[in-house]
Amino acid sequence: MPVTLPAVSLALSGERFVAVYRLAGDPAEAQRKALDICLEQTVELPLALVPAGDIRDHIVGRVESLESAEAGYCRARISFAVETAGSELTQLLNVAFGNTSFKSGIRLERLDLPEGLLRAFPGPRFGREGLRSLLDAPRRPLLGAALKPMGLPPSGLAQLAYQFALGSIDLIKDDHGLANQPLAAYRERAQRCAEAVARANRQTGLNCLYAPNISAPADQVLDRALWARQVGAGALLITPGLTGFDVMRQVAADDRVALPIVSHPAFQGSFVAHPDQGISHYTLFGQFNRLAGADVSLVINYGGRFASTLQDCLAWAAGTAAPMGHLKSIFPAPAGSISLDRMPEMLRVYGNDALFLMVGDLYQQGPDLTENCRRWRRLVDRIAAAEA
Amino acid sequence: MPVTLPAVSLALSGERFVAVYRLAGDPAEAQRKALDICLEQTVELPLALVPAGDIRDHIVGRVESLESAEAGYCRARISFAVETAGSELTQLLNVAFGNTSFKSGIRLERLDLPEGLLRAFPGPRFGREGLRSLLDAPRRPLLGAALKPMGLPPSGLAQLAYQFALGSIDLIKDDHGLANQPLAAYRERAQRCAEAVARANRQTGLNCLYAPNISAPADQVLDRALWARQVGAGALLITPGLTGFDVMRQVAADDRVALPIVSHPAFQGSFVAHPDQGISHYTLFGQFNRLAGADVSLVINYGGRFASTLQDCLAWAAGTAAPMGHLKSIFPAPAGSISLDRMPEMLRVYGNDALFLMVGDLYQQGPDLTENCRRWRRLVDRIAAAEA
Repeated sequence: MPVTLPAVSLALSGERFVAVYRLAGDPAEAQRKALDICLEQTVELPLALVPAGDIRDHIVGRVESLESAEAGYCRARISFAVETAGSELTQLLNVAFGNTSFKSGIRLERLDLPEGLLRAFPGPRFGREGLRSLLDAPRRPLLGAALKPMGLPPSGLAQLAYQFALGSIDLIKDDHGLANQPLAAYRERAQRCAEAVARANRQTGLNCLYAPNISAPADQVLDRALWARQVGAGALLITPGLTGFDVMRQVAADDRVALPIVSHPAFQGSFVAHPDQGISHYTLFGQFNRLAGADVSLVINYGGRFASTLQDCLAWAAGTAAPMGHLKSIFPAPAGSISLDRMPEMLRVYGNDALFLMVGDLYQQGPDLTENCRRWRRLVDRIAAAEA
Repeated sequence: MPVTLPAVSLALSGERFVAVYRLAGDPAEAQRKALDICLEQTVELPLALVPAGDIRDHIVGRVESLESAEAGYCRARISFAVETAGSELTQLLNVAFGNTSFKSGIRLERLDLPEGLLRAFPGPRFGREGLRSLLDAPRRPLLGAALKPMGLPPSGLAQLAYQFALGSIDLIKDDHGLANQPLAAYRERAQRCAEAVARANRQTGLNCLYAPNISAPADQVLDRALWARQVGAGALLITPGLTGFDVMRQVAADDRVALPIVSHPAFQGSFVAHPDQGISHYTLFGQFNRLAGADVSLVINYGGRFASTLQDCLAWAAGTAAPMGHLKSIFPAPAGSISLDRMPEMLRVYGNDALFLMVGDLYQQGPDLTENCRRWRRLVDRIAAAEA
């Protein structure tokens, strides 16, 4: 006879959230996997050991539906009491995919979160509309560039920022590899680049935003965000795969910072590398980024040097705009192998509600960086006008 | 003619660190992948656009060797200037695997870090020796348990903690799904469980450590660690996949906390799910955890409900003890499908330098939890004595 664990009565709201999983296997195998998720993600005990009463009836996950999907797969909707996540993003991620990340043939495809849970998360402060309003660009596609390569001193990076901004680029981000190395220490770099962009904005009358990279040790991220604000940077870049999603959420929620946030996906590629495992592009880069307050989700573009497919990128972009209660839609920002030649295709695929990031081809097009940027702007405006 | 980027002279130390990658493909394909890593992880530009001088010569990664490995694979040792990482863990992870996580057929296998880089990281505060000293257990295997299921109130969890501790368990951790839910709010739970374990310790004369789970929103992790210290908890549990590795590093480095840290791998399974992608168990759970200051690395055990293999677990454990300059060795803590029956096998595989975590089978063995724990202790001591 085993240990008797006490049956308890819990004051539960009755609200539940749903996680949708794609399960490899036939319906019998999928059923086994679904029931396993219900236990693993909550009580972490075999059902026989779970105390009767509210823990067994309401804390253990519940298979709401299980259907056959594409050949060889099923799709399960599993609900969890909102109390299992409390109101913390870290624990919400844990219930959705914590230990299950070590099981084979289970991919987290989507979260459906009720308002009772969503209200714990303010989400994106700006979103698509807010960013368009800052840029005075109600409808057109947005253009972005990055400061690189690593190794240039702050003065050299600021000079590039000035030329990009003068060329009517909307958003200029640090390359995500610029941290606080001695090569271009954060504070000086952020200040010089922000000043350079402000100088260009005075000349152009535009409002180009500069986003310094605040991915940093945990105890320094907020300081870097506040410094960015102080020196007049118009946005921020952060890599939640390095810092943790919740560090981004903390920055986004801080009223002293109040700048749009570009989320970079570096270090997160393994979550989408295995077709039968991990987390969908839609949820990881769309839904999680929005829960954590990003305003822009950088998309690793297809057709170039990365493993992304067109389908991956469409799912990625779809997650930035799918209904999520009060959480604002955010911009997908395709990056990697974007070139002037590919712009007609890029605009067809992503539409106008995207921020296109280009660097290499802007360096390639001719000796005058500002003129190269302007050519890109004219090309994009011409294509967008022709389609309107 | 492209834009001319300025050639710069950099004051570099000449010290480089090495990342070892396993590359899918024949030597020609592997060579292409290796050169791509050199650029992608540093300058993120095609080589033709990289300015001549120190950026091209020293900032771009360098293929130190490329050898054929098992059939269909090659192994590349790529070195990077220590200045590309600066002295930040976030950026070190970024250089080692940031954007490369989105490439196919590349697995990060190992880091070789020179002391010039390692000195930025104090690493584990206790390590194997420190933990053994706290527990007055110079050689024997350590035994651990977890408080579950989610849904029990603090009083019920504290009662379990008391029984485990009375049964001579060495370390009792919160289940990693206990966060700060209304079901068992953190502060009350940590205090009650710490008090229960202290009471048992006064009876047994042992020094069982209780590790509350401080995985939390970024701005609350340190508060929870300090609360744990204040109420007399003997250790901490944190899940870096949820909080970010650097949040754990911050806690480990804080002299006001100064408690052993158990690192839980939840949410990190996708990094090891694809055989040709991601990060090795050795590096992710051994090397990274030690860089981030963990004293114990919870191992998702083989032979049970998870995808881990024996080989995975051996690599995981090897990473906890491999030479890394001044960084202490830490304990592997196999968890999942550990049972009394399997202890002879477990001790053969992991040896005495492991902390074995069991819950389900301790609940199953009989109605008296304390007696079940004592039986486990006697069994393990008998096996260990017979082998000595």
